[in-house]
Amino acid sequence: MISKHRSAPRKRSRLTGALFATVLAMIAFTPGPMTIGATARSADPLPSWNNTAAKKSLVDFVAKVTKKGSPDFVAPAERIAVFDNDGTLWSEQPMYFQLLFALDRVKTLAPQHPEWNTTEPFASLLKGDVKGALAGGGEKALMEIMMATHAGMSTQEFGMVVKDWIATARHPVTKRPYTEMIYQPMLELLAYLRANEFKTYIVSGGGIEFIRAFSERVYGIPPEQVIGSSIKTKFQMRGSQPELVRLPAINFIDDGPGKPIGINEHIGRRPIAAFGNSDGDLQMLQWTAAGSGARFCLYVHHTDDVRESAYDRQSHIGKLDKGLDESAQRGWTVVDMKNDWATIFPPAKK
Amino acid sequence: MISKHRSAPRKRSRLTGALFATVLAMIAFTPGPMTIGATARSADPLPSWNNTAAKKSLVDFVAKVTKKGSPDFVAPAERIAVFDNDGTLWSEQPMYFQLLFALDRVKTLAPQHPEWNTTEPFASLLKGDVKGALAGGGEKALMEIMMATHAGMSTQEFGMVVKDWIATARHPVTKRPYTEMIYQPMLELLAYLRANEFKTYIVSGGGIEFIRAFSERVYGIPPEQVIGSSIKTKFQMRGSQPELVRLPAINFIDDGPGKPIGINEHIGRRPIAAFGNSDGDLQMLQWTAAGSGARFCLYVHHTDDVRESAYDRQSHIGKLDKGLDESAQRGWTVVDMKNDWATIFPPAKK
Repeated sequence: MISKHRSAPRKRSRLTGALFATVLAMIAFTPGPMTIGATARSADPLPSWNNTAAKKSLVDFVAKVTKKGSPDFVAPAERIAVFDNDGTLWSEQPMYFQLLFALDRVKTLAPQHPEWNTTEPFASLLKGDVKGALAGGGEKALMEIMMATHAGMSTQEFGMVVKDWIATARHPVTKRPYTEMIYQPMLELLAYLRANEFKTYIVSGGGIEFIRAFSERVYGIPPEQVIGSSIKTKFQMRGSQPELVRLPAINFIDDGPGKPIGINEHIGRRPIAAFGNSDGDLQMLQWTAAGSGARFCLYVHHTDDVRESAYDRQSHIGKLDKGLDESAQRGWTVVDMKNDWATIFPPAKK
Repeated sequence: MISKHRSAPRKRSRLTGALFATVLAMIAFTPGPMTIGATARSADPLPSWNNTAAKKSLVDFVAKVTKKGSPDFVAPAERIAVFDNDGTLWSEQPMYFQLLFALDRVKTLAPQHPEWNTTEPFASLLKGDVKGALAGGGEKALMEIMMATHAGMSTQEFGMVVKDWIATARHPVTKRPYTEMIYQPMLELLAYLRANEFKTYIVSGGGIEFIRAFSERVYGIPPEQVIGSSIKTKFQMRGSQPELVRLPAINFIDDGPGKPIGINEHIGRRPIAAFGNSDGDLQMLQWTAAGSGARFCLYVHHTDDVRESAYDRQSHIGKLDKGLDESAQRGWTVVDMKNDWATIFPPAKK
């Protein structure tokens, strides 16, 4: 029997620290307007990438590791590429989409919880006052919101809840489905790598079960290639049916130094290519770069406040500070979204 | 920062309970002599399986889930098969091989630990007195042995240590390499399933990093398809090199109810076929069986005390009691090793 009460508190501060910063940022942050670029399809596998140094570095790397007889050749089984999700594969502004899910979920669940009308942080949230909800309780309030919305049901039920939400919810600024707030150049890159016998993984600070609910459909990444943060689960019988129940206790935080740990636990091989956008991805890139043979590390730098958002060293969400310095020192590729990407978002689906 | 001291004690008793039983069994248990059967190769993908009901149930299952248009058809991506390791893919007598590794490792490390000559449980172990080593300290002593031999080095170093050991160590009874103490019928089954576009996973109570050191070479199962118990790791820089250091603290016990939890965490899909040999696999089989559509559950029943060992309901190692009852009730396949397997071990390698 797993003791949730003893293990949860020691990991709370990192998770809720990050989430809390996100919520504060949500209140303070005004993103630039986002517009949808056009997608040009051609024989070029990366048509949404301008012909700049970033694209060339990608194509050169793939060419050398896939060329038989090349000193840099890597066997297909070892062609592991890892991608952060928030800010790398899809947008993370005005806040992590999973937090928007949690806030929506509080509203949906409210009728089953009449006590929330008089209990903080839920009472303020239900009045639309996010700032007020968090003013009193801070990190503790945020953890209550996350656990009230992510635990207390089976893994199967949670998957359905996320699927339902993501099928209908809309981004607060662009009013597009979240699954269209993904980066077209990164979709092309995923497909390009897979066409070259890479195995593409998501390695996210977000919830593993949250992302799995849409990763295959949206990114072509199957559930077994998603690594993320998780809460504890418990095996139990409901009548004659076994189920895994999601418990209100953190199991693993797949962020920062947690990313190499999660990669090692799930994959057991060192990636040869890693893609991120924040300092929370730095250890994943360092871990990838430290292997022998050809390696590729890339940071997506959010520089386009017209088509998406511009933020880096001072941002509460997706802070990219140390990562920029280390990229410069080590010659890692830094994508300047404004200049390197011809298109940012895919065209709207009918 | 992960606190190892707070998390370790709460999970100790289950792990060390199982290990302790193993060691007690080692002292009491006298396995039957093991002989090497001949392997007949033919067009039959399962030549080491006699033509009995067990083999037929396997072949029928594979036929129906792979036949397009069949109501039982399963898309290749969903063809997940999970295998226990100890007692299912390789032998587990006279004790779990990983424990034999730990005992060997104490001897190897002794010169670097002069204090062990006067400290229990190591002093007794080094004199060859396993019983004495454990008589005083019990589970605590066993945990000390495991942590002294499995922690305190990088994941990379540990992998090398296991690879070196498994390349040279010999089984105490048969004097064969451990990698030849595997079941030839199960090797054929793994290959047969993969030829039918199944993805084969190991889901073991044994250590994930221990098994990964040989799973690809021995079973054709790559590291990302191995799920097992783990200790905590910590990301740190050694000079400019990042490394993952193995800490003396349990992270996850992939046994009993832990198996469905590990499967869900790593794969995120429910298997359609599960193979085990003990009550520690029961929840994995129940979890597999509870999915919709065609399912296959199989227990390997150790019934051959001439060619291997015979044990079930009363055994300290690989106890199979509830699993036998549930198999009978639910019509799961139970392999009678004596009658269903023409060959048990592969021929010795030159």
